[in-house]
Amino acid sequence: MTVTSSTDAAAEGHEAVALLERTRTAVHPELRSAVESLPGSVRRVAMYHFGWEHADGTQAAGPAGKAIRPALVLAAERALAWDPAGEPTRDQQHAAAGRQSAGAGPRQSAVRAAVAVELAHNFTLLHDDVIDEDPTRRHRATAWTVFGTPDAIIAGDAMMALALRLFAEDPHPASAAASARLATCVIELCAGQQADCAFEQRGPHEVSLDECVAMAMSKTGALLGASCALGALYAGAEEEQVAALDAFGREAGLAFQLIDDLIGIWGDPDRTGKPAGADLAAHKKSLPVVAALASGTPAAEELAELYRSPMDDAAVRRAADAVERAGGRDWAQFEAADRMSRAVHQLSRAVPDLSAGDDLLALAEFVTRRNR
Amino acid sequence: MTVTSSTDAAAEGHEAVALLERTRTAVHPELRSAVESLPGSVRRVAMYHFGWEHADGTQAAGPAGKAIRPALVLAAERALAWDPAGEPTRDQQHAAAGRQSAGAGPRQSAVRAAVAVELAHNFTLLHDDVIDEDPTRRHRATAWTVFGTPDAIIAGDAMMALALRLFAEDPHPASAAASARLATCVIELCAGQQADCAFEQRGPHEVSLDECVAMAMSKTGALLGASCALGALYAGAEEEQVAALDAFGREAGLAFQLIDDLIGIWGDPDRTGKPAGADLAAHKKSLPVVAALASGTPAAEELAELYRSPMDDAAVRRAADAVERAGGRDWAQFEAADRMSRAVHQLSRAVPDLSAGDDLLALAEFVTRRNR
Repeated sequence: MTVTSSTDAAAEGHEAVALLERTRTAVHPELRSAVESLPGSVRRVAMYHFGWEHADGTQAAGPAGKAIRPALVLAAERALAWDPAGEPTRDQQHAAAGRQSAGAGPRQSAVRAAVAVELAHNFTLLHDDVIDEDPTRRHRATAWTVFGTPDAIIAGDAMMALALRLFAEDPHPASAAASARLATCVIELCAGQQADCAFEQRGPHEVSLDECVAMAMSKTGALLGASCALGALYAGAEEEQVAALDAFGREAGLAFQLIDDLIGIWGDPDRTGKPAGADLAAHKKSLPVVAALASGTPAAEELAELYRSPMDDAAVRRAADAVERAGGRDWAQFEAADRMSRAVHQLSRAVPDLSAGDDLLALAEFVTRRNR
Repeated sequence: MTVTSSTDAAAEGHEAVALLERTRTAVHPELRSAVESLPGSVRRVAMYHFGWEHADGTQAAGPAGKAIRPALVLAAERALAWDPAGEPTRDQQHAAAGRQSAGAGPRQSAVRAAVAVELAHNFTLLHDDVIDEDPTRRHRATAWTVFGTPDAIIAGDAMMALALRLFAEDPHPASAAASARLATCVIELCAGQQADCAFEQRGPHEVSLDECVAMAMSKTGALLGASCALGALYAGAEEEQVAALDAFGREAGLAFQLIDDLIGIWGDPDRTGKPAGADLAAHKKSLPVVAALASGTPAAEELAELYRSPMDDAAVRRAADAVERAGGRDWAQFEAADRMSRAVHQLSRAVPDLSAGDDLLALAEFVTRRNR
């Protein structure tokens, strides 16, 4: 997989863009009503974080996030409930068993899981912004800068409890298994975030590439995997299919992280909204950087030396060049391609007729495209 | 209810002390094995927080907490599963339906709920210590002072996910209802903690007594109520009994908070480990203080004036005297007695034969006793 040009990407990504748009239409009303069920003071922070309200409580445009994770939940559910012969699938039987009102079909159930995933994702964003002291997210001031650290921590806690409450209140037969899976994933996200913080404290040569890949898998891959797994569970899939879809999401998630790290070094500032080399200037131990540092080349030494002091623009350019000469850029591009091919393999295990997995594939390709 | 002397308390509390000891014996092994299931880096913070490990990772004495909430879960479960005639109760039938191995009886199931409650409680302690910047808890350095704020936030998040995962993995028929109840309670705890932070920012006359009582009910009452409700759910009780036991725990929790606030002003430093008047010196808007401020008396004005500046020891003594003259001390003592009588009334609604509720009553009396 190579980083495609803007025009190709726009054409290829058309399907995924439409899919994400449909997902937001299906998920946002339920997401909003869940958030609005929070007690007043906590609700205000959450409404701001999602983008439904400005800092002063007046109405805003609504969520700026792309809803990748909810889209994976719904696409996974469709992929495994898909039955070209028109026979009732396990999903439909399960959904009927768990249905409370005549209007609640399989899609309806999976929407709840999609809302839970989006809440869990945003809980981690709220806490990560506090932990990393990030001032902006999606071009807006982060919640902790507006409401203070205590309120941002508390709102994150409440959103996480709300996510798991959605499952506890869901009569769908898969809800308990889904809740356990999401809770396990949150614990893995915590371990990933903890490792990320720990790595930032270490010197340039003190983080191995394996550790860094494992961290990215926990921090980014785990929730994409869990999103797919939850969709599969709600479709009434067998454990083997659930595990394969989880692995599909994880591998695609790692590819996504690799591409994201490449953008953090060589991204176009006009498109990313960040200055070129922002991750290098911040001394971030991203995957291409750690791969370069681990290469044992003279360029690795040069990079390590640059990482020991603050860098001006010229130093950032030299660092980017050193990552490339040390093989970090090539490694990340090949690794991303390899992860995507593993993802496709896992998808084919879960969905033998790959046409049922079209949407999942489109989403995986979308997130690993340079100008998403 | 008046604040009893040390000797009376020791005699009267004997039953509760034994009950708490038995609870710790039943709950701590499962609590520890749950905490040990966390990923390494997160586990270390959690093991330290609970007191199983010192800061350097070496073995320590174990939890210093009294396990009040787990004891309430188990006592509530026994109270509602209690059947003097020896007929199989709903609890026993339910537990049999949900049992996976021959050894797992009703007690076993309620232990899992007790562990979940203790995890949820300790998740709030970890985050509250970060938010309030408290340097010590139970005579030890708080986790954030030892491991840093990021690790303390992350460990709290993981403990909360773990608590709800215990329910999601529990085949007991009440587990989903219990999970929803605990998640709802966590959201209320968040609202209570948020209100507490907000009140600290306001002037002496800007917090009403009603707001302050509502905050204490959310911050302290809610989890004691939920503990009782979870025990009732695991006993297979009717919704009306569950609600009455929840109300019992909440009222007892408010009485507990009132007594705790009295101790914060007039407590014996030798017994509490805190200097006399510590809450006054910290300008804390505790319940007796807010009641005094709301009294419209000259002493209220005096107190408000003292709360506008830092206080030396003499000023703290004058403030304590002003709370007393403004009626704050009497109000809190009468209110605590009233809340306890409401608690007993709710208990009698849930458990018509009060002898089955002996343990719950003993626990409520224990927590509202001065020298607990």
